[in-house]
Amino acid sequence: MKKILFATTAIIATAGVAAADSANVNMNGMGRFGLLYADPAGAVGGTTVLHHRLDLNFDIETESDAGVTFGARIRMRASTGSAFARNAAMAANPANGTGAFNGARLYAESNGLTVAVGNILGAVDSMPNLYTGAVGLTGLSFAANPAIIGDNHAYSGGGAGLTQGAEIIYSANGLGLHVSYGGAAGAKQTQVAASYTFNNYTLAAAFVDNTNPAATDTKWVVTAGGTFGPATLALKVAENETTGTVYGLGANIEVAPSTTVQAYFMKDDNNTNAYAEDTAYGVGFVYGLGGGASVRGGVEKSYGDTKADLGVRFNF
Amino acid sequence: MKKILFATTAIIATAGVAAADSANVNMNGMGRFGLLYADPAGAVGGTTVLHHRLDLNFDIETESDAGVTFGARIRMRASTGSAFARNAAMAANPANGTGAFNGARLYAESNGLTVAVGNILGAVDSMPNLYTGAVGLTGLSFAANPAIIGDNHAYSGGGAGLTQGAEIIYSANGLGLHVSYGGAAGAKQTQVAASYTFNNYTLAAAFVDNTNPAATDTKWVVTAGGTFGPATLALKVAENETTGTVYGLGANIEVAPSTTVQAYFMKDDNNTNAYAEDTAYGVGFVYGLGGGASVRGGVEKSYGDTKADLGVRFNF
Amino acid sequence: MKKILFATTAIIATAGVAAADSANVNMNGMGRFGLLYADPAGAVGGTTVLHHRLDLNFDIETESDAGVTFGARIRMRASTGSAFARNAAMAANPANGTGAFNGARLYAESNGLTVAVGNILGAVDSMPNLYTGAVGLTGLSFAANPAIIGDNHAYSGGGAGLTQGAEIIYSANGLGLHVSYGGAAGAKQTQVAASYTFNNYTLAAAFVDNTNPAATDTKWVVTAGGTFGPATLALKVAENETTGTVYGLGANIEVAPSTTVQAYFMKDDNNTNAYAEDTAYGVGFVYGLGGGASVRGGVEKSYGDTKADLGVRFNF
Repeated sequence: MKKILFATTAIIATAGVAAADSANVNMNGMGRFGLLYADPAGAVGGTTVLHHRLDLNFDIETESDAGVTFGARIRMRASTGSAFARNAAMAANPANGTGAFNGARLYAESNGLTVAVGNILGAVDSMPNLYTGAVGLTGLSFAANPAIIGDNHAYSGGGAGLTQGAEIIYSANGLGLHVSYGGAAGAKQTQVAASYTFNNYTLAAAFVDNTNPAATDTKWVVTAGGTFGPATLALKVAENETTGTVYGLGANIEVAPSTTVQAYFMKDDNNTNAYAEDTAYGVGFVYGLGGGASVRGGVEKSYGDTKADLGVRFNF
Repeated sequence: MKKILFATTAIIATAGVAAADSANVNMNGMGRFGLLYADPAGAVGGTTVLHHRLDLNFDIETESDAGVTFGARIRMRASTGSAFARNAAMAANPANGTGAFNGARLYAESNGLTVAVGNILGAVDSMPNLYTGAVGLTGLSFAANPAIIGDNHAYSGGGAGLTQGAEIIYSANGLGLHVSYGGAAGAKQTQVAASYTFNNYTLAAAFVDNTNPAATDTKWVVTAGGTFGPATLALKVAENETTGTVYGLGANIEVAPSTTVQAYFMKDDNNTNAYAEDTAYGVGFVYGLGGGASVRGGVEKSYGDTKADLGVRFNF
Repeated sequence: MKKILFATTAIIATAGVAAADSANVNMNGMGRFGLLYADPAGAVGGTTVLHHRLDLNFDIETESDAGVTFGARIRMRASTGSAFARNAAMAANPANGTGAFNGARLYAESNGLTVAVGNILGAVDSMPNLYTGAVGLTGLSFAANPAIIGDNHAYSGGGAGLTQGAEIIYSANGLGLHVSYGGAAGAKQTQVAASYTFNNYTLAAAFVDNTNPAATDTKWVVTAGGTFGPATLALKVAENETTGTVYGLGANIEVAPSTTVQAYFMKDDNNTNAYAEDTAYGVGFVYGLGGGASVRGGVEKSYGDTKADLGVRFNF
């Protein structure tokens, strides 16, 4: 039932020559493997598992005669199940996973203005400095990010992403604007973010409106970051509906030509997890080996959970 | 349990050098996104949804010393669920889909004769002019096609395709022959199609034999099409087992250098759908933007349903 | 929750230029199609089915400044379900399968030493000469391999592979060492294999330790093979926990420039299958067509089952 696609392709071919030559599929991604340790301070106890992940992206782009870029990305991911979400216990003895595609993000871009649909990036999750200071081979609990964004309102690396997602992004002269929208029926979010970069500093703020009044998602986020010699420092504050204000500091510091250290300290004023711990902190490193490869590791105490990892990663 | 594959590969390598160099994997496909509207005139009422689809084909070909081409195609598709089948209501608020492969089609070709297995094209669905006049970004209900071919007896863009499918295709000097066979146990179809092109005109006829006497599939189809200046016009008639004779006209007309208009009008003498409507008609357009990109849209009244779409598509 | 990946990628990019240029994704694989016949001498009776398979591998490699190679492989496979495992009946009338990825194998390699995780190759399944003499387009029952390796302790062509798999491989000056480890909780295996090649001969031995005392897996395997003019001959002996000693001979013989014949004869002293047959034997051929394509076929009597296949295969 798809012969129309070929038929109309043929029609277009008469209008513009060499359509196939002007497009491109670029494959890139990363692989990583190593050891993960988690002590959830609960029933499971300390556990060490072997972790691996392979991400293979297919990036597609073509450009119209008027200079509008049309493109798409989709990703294949194969991974052991490292359920390292905030305050979640790691599954014992994870099995290998078979590779699978996530959802596609499709976009049109022209003169700094991008319209995208599908598995969108999301305005909050794309804020500058939101993840500054996240540690380790895997990111561990990603506690350096103060925001809680439910309903896949961020690019989903291994899943379908946001239901009916759409976003508009504008970037020019240091100014960045990002509006994203989507979500399941009854829990649709609108996110609006703005950022401004001057000299070596970037300020950003975002607001979230959720049609579900009971949602525990983030209400607003502010980040302020800058580079100071070899260091990138970032302050972050978020107001999450029920868990209160989360704030803290993250840093990435290049301590030697191929060596970067990351660290973060976060406080959640009204943490609702089982351990009654309201602080999270961690430290990690990246040591570049050349050719896109690096050794990476990190350790953290994230709201009562101890987590650590160590391994190699290669970008391609 | 697959080491034999490598072992025998090695044996072949001694017989012919540079096997790897003589083969090829070509990636191509299309992305599209836009808005779909459907008013099923029934319980669901009018609904507008955001649609997107990414198709990424892997086309593989190699040629033997005697000039026989061996090849295969498989497709990754990621899509929102646009259930735009004939007379079917569109699902409200569709979620994004993760990408997935369809079934593979493998073939051998030499001197105009092709033998293929797997997710085959199907003799009826490959008839010239069958889809002429289909409209819109997505094809909407594809009502311009008069045939009803059950049991996946057409290339499946997102699924496995025909059970135990096999086909033979011959093409030379304007003559085309196509025999396809397959289907689930108890409902196997044999399809035979022939076409002949002379000057700017193509005549085609197909016959279907289904081992299931209760099948509502098409019994025979005839199409006649030709180009008249900037227009391609096609007449189509099909006898579907229980719904009777379906016939009509489709047209694709290049109205300006990069602009094509499509239109169709079909009549189903014994339409069995809920609305007792026996006609379907629609109009659409494609406006080429260069670089394989285009703006497309369409609107139709298809056997009682109103459907429309508008968006962009890019081939790569 | 993955923006950290990009953030730390950016950090690395400052340390080493042109990371993307030093990496590579290579696509390769094979397609095959033909007819399979099985007579299980049981309830199902003789059955002939159409078979096809497409394997598309993505091989990724990058090299660090110190010359360490980091890499990964993942495979897409689309296939009809040819359940040709030892003594298993072939499913009647198999449907096409949609393509799917297997599990990824990731590795680091330097100076002949490889460390790999994920969907590993396995020490026993990688032994030289283990599959010598396996016959046909598909390998049929793979009875030429005397070992029974449970729990996916071999590279899985279409599945996830071994749970928590890891292996170390060393190869230099004709000496090969291979240790692999992994398995589901309660059934973890350690496999140790060594091989030595001198002149045209290769000796290999492997031992398996399974933490599950009731496992029916292989306990040890010995193979001895060599090339004698146009022939490769191999003796194989394995001790399988409950089914006793399995031993036999396999041969691949290049009988003409592009033509190879395979044959095997195996004996299982304590075969436990339904037919009380303790021998398996088969013969097959590969006729190279050039360009990576070949015609292949085989016939065997494998522990009471008669199986045969015939078709074409192309490597790319």
